[in-house]
Parts: sequence; structure tokens; C-alpha cells
Amino acid sequence: MKGKSILITGAGGFTGMHACEYFAGIGMQVYASVRHLDTNVLFGEKIVCDMMHKEQIYAMVRQLQPDYVLHLAGRNSVPESWKEPVSYLETNVMSTFYLLDALREIPKCRTLVIGSKLKFDIRVTSQPPHPYSLSKTMQQMAVNTWVHLFGQFIMLAEPSNLIGPGPSTGICALLARKMVQVERNVTVEPFRLSSTEETRDFLDIRDAVRAYRIILENGKQGQSYPIESGKLLRLGEVFQTFQHYARTPIPVEVAGNDAGIHAPVHHANPFVMNELGWQARIPFDRSVQDIIQYFRNQ
Amino acid sequence: MKGKSILITGAGGFTGMHACEYFAGIGMQVYASVRHLDTNVLFGEKIVCDMMHKEQIYAMVRQLQPDYVLHLAGRNSVPESWKEPVSYLETNVMSTFYLLDALREIPKCRTLVIGSKLKFDIRVTSQPPHPYSLSKTMQQMAVNTWVHLFGQFIMLAEPSNLIGPGPSTGICALLARKMVQVERNVTVEPFRLSSTEETRDFLDIRDAVRAYRIILENGKQGQSYPIESGKLLRLGEVFQTFQHYARTPIPVEVAGNDAGIHAPVHHANPFVMNELGWQARIPFDRSVQDIIQYFRNQ
Repeated sequence: MKGKSILITGAGGFTGMHACEYFAGIGMQVYASVRHLDTNVLFGEKIVCDMMHKEQIYAMVRQLQPDYVLHLAGRNSVPESWKEPVSYLETNVMSTFYLLDALREIPKCRTLVIGSKLKFDIRVTSQPPHPYSLSKTMQQMAVNTWVHLFGQFIMLAEPSNLIGPGPSTGICALLARKMVQVERNVTVEPFRLSSTEETRDFLDIRDAVRAYRIILENGKQGQSYPIESGKLLRLGEVFQTFQHYARTPIPVEVAGNDAGIHAPVHHANPFVMNELGWQARIPFDRSVQDIIQYFRNQ
Repeated sequence: MKGKSILITGAGGFTGMHACEYFAGIGMQVYASVRHLDTNVLFGEKIVCDMMHKEQIYAMVRQLQPDYVLHLAGRNSVPESWKEPVSYLETNVMSTFYLLDALREIPKCRTLVIGSKLKFDIRVTSQPPHPYSLSKTMQQMAVNTWVHLFGQFIMLAEPSNLIGPGPSTGICALLARKMVQVERNVTVEPFRLSSTEETRDFLDIRDAVRAYRIILENGKQGQSYPIESGKLLRLGEVFQTFQHYARTPIPVEVAGNDAGIHAPVHHANPFVMNELGWQARIPFDRSVQDIIQYFRNQ
């Protein structure tokens, strides 16, 4: 892929920042699409584009003619999606329609859309658990449609819970932020843990970005790729790992598990990514140390 | 429903014009929502609202506080949807999201969304036959979501092929228009019939609008209502019926059936509408005569 160009949408986000660094690092021309002019972009060429603005997307694609596209732009908070369901559908669904449709002008382009395991299975139920889930299911339908009706080379990746240094809003980032606040005596409020027994698969963002490259290079048209570390951790273990590295004990309060927010875990088929020669390399403990380091440096 | 108010979107269209006349006729306050100021509205109060413009929709709903909503706005041509897939998704899906979300402010409101039998069954395939089908499936998902997540009183109607006097773009309107052109010596070009053997269910628009009223009044929250005449006609029979009333023979050319455009017929469950006390009353022959009369008067 060296010497080729890649358009990365949502480049200012947690995954986007890592993706720009990675793809620039392997010698690609990186176009980092961000919504606001003042967003900091450290790797690649900054492109300002509002993904809710159809004409801007068509113009951007026509001008850049990218060889590859990594579509990260979107919103991904379940609680927020309850408050602003329409905004979630605009941002996650319509922006994908606009982008995929604009890419019809570049048939050779390979595109990877980042979906979510929190989508719901439309073959089983007509009732999504929350608006975010609806938006990610519809995003997958957009991918299927533009592949099958218009023959485009699009793939979907569905990573598990992404962790690592950077401006994430996931539980590990929240824990690290709380830890640093407690160490600095900024707060004494306990960390609210939804449950100690609930299990999740955590994947380091750097492993995920490497998987995205492999899929973009060698993936099959129209295929969905679940990406997981393969190790389910209890949230209690997650908390203990952070506690282990804390200079001051982190106060904690365990709430009841909110079944309405947490969808059942979909187990991935690890063979799909293993076939492409990928497996997770970074252990959870290493991710945690890097996350803590990131927040201590803020 | 007499004395109550109803907001009818897409009021300038074929169904909308009949719906405004009908609901005004039973003594309702009709708000006829149209996109353009210069659209002719004969019954009800004209409301200008662009259904692609979120803020306009929220403002309209807040101001009118309708007791009932009949959501007809949208586009419904399969060939057009191939040319402008994104526009079809904006018009049929996003406008529905905007409208249903705006109606969260009026919990007592009963809403009927008009779907289509050309939706595809997501439990069976991930591949829609055309973008129009995708848009109507997603519209149904919007209805399910706003019913189940937000508890709104919304229903879906899925009429078969609607016919009757007025500016339709269906096969019967095209046949009547051709007949009148031939009678007036405007054309000698033959009518292109996709197939003589393909069968379709045709339903008079006035029967359909009466069904919409019954559903709005007595339908169940979250229910889908297929609406059909119950009589499948071969396209050859349809042509012969028009030929029978023609003053000059209509030239015809039978093309091969385009399987890519015509989805398989979904058979409705007639009991669902019979339970509500509805059945089709207007025979096909009467519809045809009224359609011909309409185009002769143009």
C-alpha cells in the first residue's frame, strides 16, 4: 500500500488519530478528514469536511480520488443515542450513504466501514435495543446495498471494545481519568462500575488499526470482519488492573447492570481474521499502562 | 374523528389529493402539507413544509398539534431510485425519522405511515432488489423503533397498486394517458407492456383512503396493515379493459418482463383488514372508467 493514498474520515477521533499515524508510518499518502478546521492533525494532510453535508463529501472524494477509504466518522455513545436518536441516524447512516455513493465515481477504490457489535440482528428481531444499535444495523445495510446493487469494493469491520492511549470515551479511559483525578486530589467521588461480573472483549486500538490495514489490503468484497482479542475480561478484573497501577486507591461503587444499555456479547469467529494472518498482539496489561501514561501526561 | 385534526404529508400527490378530500368530507380539520407554495390544494389548509428540512418539520408539528397524521410524502418510482438512490433514502427514510421524532412531543397523536409491498424481507436476505426497496424497509424499521423505544402510537399500511382518477404514475394512468394521446392523434408510438402474464393486485385509491381512516381510528399500535383488493389481474387483462373503452385501438408492444424491477408479489392476509370491517368496494372496471374520464378531461 506504500505510495498509495487513503482517505480517513473521523480522523480527529480516538481511532482516527491512531489510524493516521499508522498509515502515514507505512508510507501512504494520508488524507485526514475532520469536521472542524481547528482539529489537530499530527499525521497526514488535513481535509475539512462536514460528513453531514452531502455536497462537501462528493467534492472531497472527487478531488482526492483516494485508493483506499477508512470510514471512521460517526458517533458511538449508547446513552447519547437515546437523547439524540435522529442525530445518530444522520451521522452514522446518512453520512455512510453519502460517502459510499460518492465513491461510485472511483470503482477501483477499496473501502472499509467500521461497524459495531452493538448492531442488532434483523433476522431475529424487529426491535433494536437502542437508537445507536439501529444506526449501526442500517449502516451495515448501506454497505450491503452499495456492494450488491452497485458492485463497489466495500468491507465492514466490527471491532470489540477498543482501548489504548488517546481521547477514548470507553470504560478504560474513564477509569484512567478517574485514577489521575484521585491522585491529584481533584475528586473523591467513586467510580461507578455497572457490574463486576459482566464480561467484555477489549482490543488495543493499535492491533485494531493493523487489522484494518490487512482487511483493506487482502479482504474480500462485501465481507464483514469481526475483530476481537479473543479474551473476555470481567469488569471486576479490569478495575483491579487499574487499581494495581494506581498511586492512590480508586474509590468504586458497583451499580446494578443496566440490561437496557448493554447488549448481549456477540462472539466473533476468530478464524475469519486468522485467515488473513492477523491476531491481537498487545496484552491488556500493556494497554492499561499506556492509557494511564496518556492521562498522566494530560 | 369529526372535529379532530389530521396532518397529511405529501398532500399534493395522487393519494394526498384524495386523502385531503376524504378527510375534509368527514368533517375533519385537514392540514395539507406540501413542499411548494404553488401546489394546488383543494381541500384543507395548505401548509408549506420541506420534508427534507428537519427544523421545518419540528416547527410544523409543534404549531399544528395534530390529533392524527397520515404520512404519504415520499418518492415511489423504482427506476428513479436506481438513478438517485441517496435522494430516495433522504426522502423516504430521513423524512420519516424527522416526522416521527417530532411527534414525540404529542404522545396522544395517532400516526399512519404508508409503506410498500416492494420492501424486502430482511429476515430472508441482506440484498434489496433496488434502492426503493431498501428505503421502504428502512422506513418500516423507523416505525418499529419509534413504537418500541419511544412508545408512540404509529401504524404502517402497505397498499397494493393504487389506481384511480388523478396524477398517478402507475400503469393504469400511463395506459389512460396513451389512450387519450392516440385518440387525439398526438402519438402512434405503441404502449410498452412489460408482460401480459404478470399478475398484480390493483386497489382503487378511494378504497385505500377509506382503509387509512379505519386504521387511524381503530388500528393497533405498531401493527402493519397490508391492503389489497384481493383480485390478481394479468397485465394482459388490464390492457384489454382499457382497449375495451378506447375510441381508437391502442397500439401495444410486449417486452420481456424485467425481473430486476418487479419484485415477487407478497400475498396479503385479507383477514387483518376484514377484522377492522374493511373490504374493497370499487370494482376494477369502475376504476378504469374514472381514470379514463380524468385523462380525457385534462
